[in-house]
Amino acid sequence: MARISKGFLNLKENYLFVEIGRKVREYVEANPDKPVIRMGIGDVTLPLAPVVVEAMQRAAGEMGVKETFRGYEDSGRGYDFLREAVAGYYKSYGVEISADEVLINDGAKSDGGNITDLFGEDNVVLVSDPVYPVYVDSSVMNGKSIIFADANESMGFSPAPPLDKKADLIYLCSPNNPTGAVFTRAQLQAWVDYAIACKAVIIYDAAYEAFISDETLPRSIFAVENARKCAIELCSLSKTAGFTGTRCGYTVIPKELEFYGENGEPLSVLKYWSRRQGSKFNGVPYIVQRGAEAVFTAEGQAQCRERIAYYMDNARIMCETFDALGIAYTGGKNSPYVWFKCGMPSWDFFDLLLSEKQVVGTPGVGFGKNGDGYFRLTAFGSKENTVEAMKRVRELMNN
Amino acid sequence: MARISKGFLNLKENYLFVEIGRKVREYVEANPDKPVIRMGIGDVTLPLAPVVVEAMQRAAGEMGVKETFRGYEDSGRGYDFLREAVAGYYKSYGVEISADEVLINDGAKSDGGNITDLFGEDNVVLVSDPVYPVYVDSSVMNGKSIIFADANESMGFSPAPPLDKKADLIYLCSPNNPTGAVFTRAQLQAWVDYAIACKAVIIYDAAYEAFISDETLPRSIFAVENARKCAIELCSLSKTAGFTGTRCGYTVIPKELEFYGENGEPLSVLKYWSRRQGSKFNGVPYIVQRGAEAVFTAEGQAQCRERIAYYMDNARIMCETFDALGIAYTGGKNSPYVWFKCGMPSWDFFDLLLSEKQVVGTPGVGFGKNGDGYFRLTAFGSKENTVEAMKRVRELMNN
Repeated sequence: MARISKGFLNLKENYLFVEIGRKVREYVEANPDKPVIRMGIGDVTLPLAPVVVEAMQRAAGEMGVKETFRGYEDSGRGYDFLREAVAGYYKSYGVEISADEVLINDGAKSDGGNITDLFGEDNVVLVSDPVYPVYVDSSVMNGKSIIFADANESMGFSPAPPLDKKADLIYLCSPNNPTGAVFTRAQLQAWVDYAIACKAVIIYDAAYEAFISDETLPRSIFAVENARKCAIELCSLSKTAGFTGTRCGYTVIPKELEFYGENGEPLSVLKYWSRRQGSKFNGVPYIVQRGAEAVFTAEGQAQCRERIAYYMDNARIMCETFDALGIAYTGGKNSPYVWFKCGMPSWDFFDLLLSEKQVVGTPGVGFGKNGDGYFRLTAFGSKENTVEAMKRVRELMNN
Repeated sequence: MARISKGFLNLKENYLFVEIGRKVREYVEANPDKPVIRMGIGDVTLPLAPVVVEAMQRAAGEMGVKETFRGYEDSGRGYDFLREAVAGYYKSYGVEISADEVLINDGAKSDGGNITDLFGEDNVVLVSDPVYPVYVDSSVMNGKSIIFADANESMGFSPAPPLDKKADLIYLCSPNNPTGAVFTRAQLQAWVDYAIACKAVIIYDAAYEAFISDETLPRSIFAVENARKCAIELCSLSKTAGFTGTRCGYTVIPKELEFYGENGEPLSVLKYWSRRQGSKFNGVPYIVQRGAEAVFTAEGQAQCRERIAYYMDNARIMCETFDALGIAYTGGKNSPYVWFKCGMPSWDFFDLLLSEKQVVGTPGVGFGKNGDGYFRLTAFGSKENTVEAMKRVRELMNN
């Protein structure tokens, strides 16, 4: 008899964004005359950079000619041209990694979830509260237990390691989704020191690193001492280069990173992850890898930075609104997310903002108990919509 | 302490194709003057069809314009345009499935491996011997035990269900990789009946269905009665349309397909698989989905059939060679693989064929004990290379 893997039975039924989708759909059906501004799901809205489009069109052309056609990629880890471009990108902000340590994937979500499969169900997973729900669900699915590190207003929503508890696998995200908080170098160093003391592995989600403009803040965990001994970094072109529908990311696993066998013997994470991918993944489309390569050229970087500047101008407009209202928030600087104190339970505020002002955001409680009373808005919309939404928020909050 | 998931420790160290790669590399380095013909890994060599290239170039262009840009795909299961095209393709050869039951993925290898994660480690997995090694490795990784159904010459390498044993999860592949054997309708019906008796789920790999020209042979497990109650079908554009480097496939999960909870309560496989994908996958690039859609147009089908005809002409040349030599083989008809009796241990024949005639194939024993004494060649090369390789095989076998 085919039986379910028990972890799946422990999943909570409703995914946050499904619930939001349902509520918005119902509102729009009942109020077709009231246009809704969506600042909920963190999807980009600006088109791909011209150099990326041109590179993909050229690559598609190559695929139609016998001499330049590409079949299976040998390793499934990404073409050297892209792995080297990624290593060069790290070098541009002072972090040394080797191209051999870069694994190209179809987005940070896939690897971020699948990488937990490497670790036995007896590993304790530590996440922050609030947290991006995918980390929790992926860990629950394969039977792991979860502990939480609180993040709250008193610490600017940057969690600190819980020195009284032991973790084996630690998810961190900076700039943070949902709170927009960014670890300082000292805060991140504390996590690295804690992980080394626990012999734990940190899975560091750096998907929003390109939004950091303050040069004192670390854009990679590998900017911090000893991180190569305890961390895997996930990154993505989704937000950096608008690849949410084009699907390309990368995972960095240092060669010296180890986890442990049944008798405590050290094992190479990179080796076992490569083995996993060899059986369960066949790489990213050649065409997409050529598009991703173009992101890392000087021209690509300039075009992508323009787009990020557009979104960060939206974030500035949002910050100015909350500053003027005297409402506490994190994010909006070095981050496309603004996380603010909404003054009531999050779902109540969601319903109020939707029904009174037709603005959709994300209830903070959907990311964990510490998120209740908070609300997330994203800077990925158009400037016009952002200005209009902030006008409506001001009206609502002033009443 | 971060600990490995124990299943990974049970994996065999050397992947078949890694070993072949090493041997070929060493030979080529030692003999740079002797050109090698590669008929080993099953990769295609003809370029993408023109309609596919044009569709992807057009889609890349859309991604560069604000009005037609696409971000995250809502469901991650594939755009409706492609899911409907796949359902229409099934209908063209008489199989009714709903577009809702089609899940678009980045290739059959990903889903074929990941789908085992849904099933608990207490499930017994049945595979044939010989078998495509990825099914075994994916199951071993997440701690499942494996039983084998023998396939050998006396049964034309089509395994029959082992009625004296119980299985929970069953991998079948037809046309088969590596043996080229194709299930008849009656043989497949026997497997479906067995699965239903065991309350097992069959994972049916139909990656080579487009190579079937004999209309009496089933191209889908859903052409067989009651299969909707017990089967998942995996298919891919890798071989059908040359997508090995473009990465798109699809999985069909019937709505009524069930597996079982802790107290034997029936659960929907489609529901849990969608939940898994929702947390661990974000869909296939829009550009690639537009390319895949083009495969299913009348023009796309005509262009893809031309390519398949080219490969099947190679298969015909191979079959004629083994017929003339009086050597037993399966495949080569309705299949791009030819699996022949090499008259000695498989690796000995591999070394002999490489060193004497500079032809690379795949040792049958790499697919299981019943493969020893057999050898796999693929029809995916050029006609010139196939003709030349068969000339060399004739010379070797006649000595």
